[in-house]
Amino acid sequence: TANESRLWASLMDMAKVGPGIAGGSNRQALTDEDNEGRTLFKNWCETENMVVKIDELGSMFAFREGTDPNALPIMIGSHLDTQPTGGRYDGILGVLAGLEVVRSLNEHNIKTKHPIVVANWTNEEGSRFAPSMIASGVYAGKYDLEYAYNCTDPDGISVKDELTRTGWLGDMPVGEPKIHAYYEYHIEQGPILEAEDKLIGVVTHGQGLAALEVTLTGKAAHTGSTPMTMRSNASLAMAKIIHVTHDLVMDNQPNTAVSVGKIDVFPNSRNVLPSKVVFTIDIRAASQDKFDELCNQIKVKVHQISSEFDVGCSIDIVGHKDPVAFDSKLVSIIRDTTSKLGYSNIDICSGAGHDAFWIADVAPSAMIMCPCVDGISHNENEEISSEWAVAGTNVLLHAVLETAII
Amino acid sequence: TANESRLWASLMDMAKVGPGIAGGSNRQALTDEDNEGRTLFKNWCETENMVVKIDELGSMFAFREGTDPNALPIMIGSHLDTQPTGGRYDGILGVLAGLEVVRSLNEHNIKTKHPIVVANWTNEEGSRFAPSMIASGVYAGKYDLEYAYNCTDPDGISVKDELTRTGWLGDMPVGEPKIHAYYEYHIEQGPILEAEDKLIGVVTHGQGLAALEVTLTGKAAHTGSTPMTMRSNASLAMAKIIHVTHDLVMDNQPNTAVSVGKIDVFPNSRNVLPSKVVFTIDIRAASQDKFDELCNQIKVKVHQISSEFDVGCSIDIVGHKDPVAFDSKLVSIIRDTTSKLGYSNIDICSGAGHDAFWIADVAPSAMIMCPCVDGISHNENEEISSEWAVAGTNVLLHAVLETAII
Ligand SMILES: NC(=O)NCCC(=O)O
Ligand SMILES: NC(=O)NCCC(=O)O
Repeated sequence: TANESRLWASLMDMAKVGPGIAGGSNRQALTDEDNEGRTLFKNWCETENMVVKIDELGSMFAFREGTDPNALPIMIGSHLDTQPTGGRYDGILGVLAGLEVVRSLNEHNIKTKHPIVVANWTNEEGSRFAPSMIASGVYAGKYDLEYAYNCTDPDGISVKDELTRTGWLGDMPVGEPKIHAYYEYHIEQGPILEAEDKLIGVVTHGQGLAALEVTLTGKAAHTGSTPMTMRSNASLAMAKIIHVTHDLVMDNQPNTAVSVGKIDVFPNSRNVLPSKVVFTIDIRAASQDKFDELCNQIKVKVHQISSEFDVGCSIDIVGHKDPVAFDSKLVSIIRDTTSKLGYSNIDICSGAGHDAFWIADVAPSAMIMCPCVDGISHNENEEISSEWAVAGTNVLLHAVLETAII
Repeated sequence: TANESRLWASLMDMAKVGPGIAGGSNRQALTDEDNEGRTLFKNWCETENMVVKIDELGSMFAFREGTDPNALPIMIGSHLDTQPTGGRYDGILGVLAGLEVVRSLNEHNIKTKHPIVVANWTNEEGSRFAPSMIASGVYAGKYDLEYAYNCTDPDGISVKDELTRTGWLGDMPVGEPKIHAYYEYHIEQGPILEAEDKLIGVVTHGQGLAALEVTLTGKAAHTGSTPMTMRSNASLAMAKIIHVTHDLVMDNQPNTAVSVGKIDVFPNSRNVLPSKVVFTIDIRAASQDKFDELCNQIKVKVHQISSEFDVGCSIDIVGHKDPVAFDSKLVSIIRDTTSKLGYSNIDICSGAGHDAFWIADVAPSAMIMCPCVDGISHNENEEISSEWAVAGTNVLLHAVLETAII
């Protein structure tokens, strides 16, 4: 079994890199902090005699040899990048649990037929560069490499620029290595496992996610001297859109969500009606039909309300992943392993998007989840216990072993 | 009469200082650009043999001597600072028309009993430092000097810091010079004069203005995995507030307005429900009763909606000026002068706030307005014609002369 205190110590060491202001981390993709976190992870892997390869998008793949030179690797992956006010576990747990699997196998001198690869995918969070899960998306052939290179952060700095600057522009083609199976272990980021008092979530499905970037063009005008009846008021139209789309999705519960987390107003002056408002509508749904229906209905509403308020409107899709069903064989392996280890568990649908969503398009994939306190994530106060952390790691270890041995 | 082309040339020269990106200006208070604009104005004044004094808040007062050493000055004032995407006339016309009055008097060698002072008030716009009209507010004894010094811009830089850095921290006590009368000439910034086809607005009153800075505290959480029923959603509460207060004020037309021009979201990430949203509600009303009623009702609504959505709420008043009635004698002088000059005119209530609002509390004050194209202001496309500009300047010249001679 995995070593709880060793796993926890590595989690705490990583959290110190790019420390947040309230106990969490700020290690956004391809920043200096991310660079430091990657270097730490690379050193840990090399200590375990793994060879670390970097692909053209900076994703890291740490290889542990298998006994059969023809067997494709089993990959364990997640991400080390965080939100600007991120927690210590979202993504990190999955990568460091992968490392802990290798450390445990090395310690017990266990050899596997298939190589094992621990992966750190670049820019999973998508907070600095939209869309999220970009590197796994290119790996799965959904996005072009050039598209990913040209994504820019709010200061206009591109992914390619930052890969070059931080030294993580590798030469392995994106899409390598081909794999036999993919496992991802992640905190739930929601309240269900804790509410149900279960230690392990066996992830059978993942919600679809879409991010619509809406640009409303109003007429900059004086707030005092422009009669309310003569305005092209972009902030008002946005307010109505946020409100109406919320009500629409509330009428379509459960397993759907809509949220607005990013708003930029121009020129952002107290006494100027905005010339422009840019905001993102984040849409989620577990069923494909609901997902398609909500995405369409919301687009229609956005256009309707904009013209009702006489503001210009354009919608840019900055992220889209259809709902996913994980590989039934791998899901069964996880469920059985969990039971064998005596951990309480339920089947669960992932509310958040994960790199596993894209990998599932090109290789058998599955996910394991552990609870997090109060369901809080994307928040510096994100918390789990070391018991929870190691339970999922044990499930990961045994599921990977079962898949890698034969 | 005033010199139309000379006035226009100075307006265009000033517009080149801190040029905008679409034909307007970006010369926010106490920036390097504002510094450059102030220096240009100072040089112009000194060429006219005026002595330029600077007060402890950086407001500039250019003195033209009178013949009676005991007579208090007639002040002509407005502001040279602009919005981040400001026009070429808002404020600037009032200051440069004052200069043109002096240039015309000098040219014709006309002496007046009262000195004439042309004033440029610091930070009228309030876009960089809230509240707006801050220097005239301290002059009128409404705010303490220390309060004004400690106002900070979004980067946390204070008024005092910037006065020191740019070299405009003068030594004349704020509140000096005492004056006999105050005139301010300004573009309307609204559509009324143009719609009524009048050249001059005789400003009898000014709307009250209040700016409520609302801080809503939500719970940062994952947009995908946090059920909609379990959220503390600050952006949603804000949307409802914007929408409800808009409807409330629409039910209280005419001569009232509410607007939201500034919104800041934290951490401002697409897939994070905001931990905090800060936005400003700008409230205007012409009648004191309506103004008080709306300010109170809006505060109540903000608190109601926040608790309905389970988000924390605090309200900070970052600006407040009650409606104002201008001095009836000066208003009559303006109205009569306008008629004598043969300009079409109507009485008007100023929708925007102006330094004259504060000065009216401590000295006889009045305002003159000219139209602006399509009522557009606080927008780089703000436009007027040189004929309009000079018509109001002629009214100003003759009204000031009438007040200054006896
Ligand atoms: N796990 C996670 O936070 N992923 C980011 C993609 C998403 O917004 O769901
Ligand atoms: N004239 C002008 O734009 N003043 C700024 C104060 C206000 O917001 O009304």
